[in-house]
Amino acid sequence: MAVNAESNNVGDGLTLQMVRDSLIRQEDTIVFSLIERARFPLNSPAYDPSYGSIPGFSGSLVELFVKQTEAVQAKVGRFENPEEHPFFPDNLPPSLVPHYKFPEVLNPAAMSININKAIWDIYFNKLLPLFVAPGDDGNYASTAARDLECLQALSRRIHYGKLVAEVKFRDEQKDYEPPIRARDTLVSLLTFADVEEAVKKRVAKKAMTFGQEVKLGEDEDKGKYKVDPVVLSGLYGDWVIPLTKEVEIEYLLHRLD
Amino acid sequence: MAVNAESNNVGDGLTLQMVRDSLIRQEDTIVFSLIERARFPLNSPAYDPSYGSIPGFSGSLVELFVKQTEAVQAKVGRFENPEEHPFFPDNLPPSLVPHYKFPEVLNPAAMSININKAIWDIYFNKLLPLFVAPGDDGNYASTAARDLECLQALSRRIHYGKLVAEVKFRDEQKDYEPPIRARDTLVSLLTFADVEEAVKKRVAKKAMTFGQEVKLGEDEDKGKYKVDPVVLSGLYGDWVIPLTKEVEIEYLLHRLD
Repeated sequence: MAVNAESNNVGDGLTLQMVRDSLIRQEDTIVFSLIERARFPLNSPAYDPSYGSIPGFSGSLVELFVKQTEAVQAKVGRFENPEEHPFFPDNLPPSLVPHYKFPEVLNPAAMSININKAIWDIYFNKLLPLFVAPGDDGNYASTAARDLECLQALSRRIHYGKLVAEVKFRDEQKDYEPPIRARDTLVSLLTFADVEEAVKKRVAKKAMTFGQEVKLGEDEDKGKYKVDPVVLSGLYGDWVIPLTKEVEIEYLLHRLD
Repeated sequence: MAVNAESNNVGDGLTLQMVRDSLIRQEDTIVFSLIERARFPLNSPAYDPSYGSIPGFSGSLVELFVKQTEAVQAKVGRFENPEEHPFFPDNLPPSLVPHYKFPEVLNPAAMSININKAIWDIYFNKLLPLFVAPGDDGNYASTAARDLECLQALSRRIHYGKLVAEVKFRDEQKDYEPPIRARDTLVSLLTFADVEEAVKKRVAKKAMTFGQEVKLGEDEDKGKYKVDPVVLSGLYGDWVIPLTKEVEIEYLLHRLD
């Protein structure tokens, strides 16, 4: 079941090494984005649909902000890249920029998979209270911008499961076909417990490295980090890894269509 | 001329320590934002006004993106905070959220100071080519989003000069009044060469700490960073510190109005 790094470099350029490198690099982005969100307290009015009175809009400030920012991003072509998934996919404006030919490596079934609703729910209801301080400093717009960065970083990482699944499938096609045809459980085939442990340890180490207060000419404040490393490894263990697997399974169940 | 940390804690809560802590924390944000921009190559079509054909808009994709994103941010109240300065201040829509009472610590003259045109010019024409790889991967929307993060982080840091000047003025009012009245040079009063050297060293150290590849169970790749530490200390020495001083001088020249 081990994935062989040498065997899956196919014509479209997708390699296991590329997928791995991207996942590792995306960890940095996730850690940075959480550290940056933690600069602000909870700022609960940003999440309260009854706060303010936004003409023609019934949701919270964050919903308004994400929806309208995604619309701007759609116009400049963000969602033309199959690695990007909107949180509010309905009624997005079309891209105004010439079509860029992103590499086509995935089965077309990938297009229909978007689990951002689950990511949104976990981020706001479970993750956020674990790593931001209580309080209200009035910076709702900056808070919403930081939330969108976190959401997009997590969404990109979790939906990268499509590429992870594709590369695993190509490498061990014989192992994957029977359970896919039987619509059987794939989760054990997709689980590499030692890799998952290493990922959790590495993101905790990144939380320590990137979240420390860097000072000149003296020891750092060891043990004082901007986001608790335990929260980071928990985020990966409890949500990022399982949700990525959910995306992988969804993708593989349609891989032979 | 040395600033005394104990003497300037006045009724509105502005203290030298707060200003210093914020400047130091903002260094992390600037380093993170440059590292994140460096994930993408230059992507020059994003800056080319002749690329694409955007109905009713004659600028580049980045201009369109920043202008429209700032409009969304204005609606959710970003520019109600006097620490935030838009790059396209003309015709911004009004905030839709209830007024939040941010602390009023600055002289009203502060409102009219916005040097974002200079920051925009330096960022795109001088800084960007120093820290991104050449090339084009088609991710113009993500690139523009990263550019906006860098621009806003730099703008906030440089315009923080208003608060720096206010706290220095309060602390040494007698030293500042004569040159302000004479509209004389203030630059020597505002220059603390040893502090500036320390800032440049610290941001270089942050570039090394935050820009390293963090690995488990082995030595890091020392000397390989996502953004060159020399670029970071140069950014501060050549642009951030001088532009902050420009903001400080502008502010002080109107401090007695």
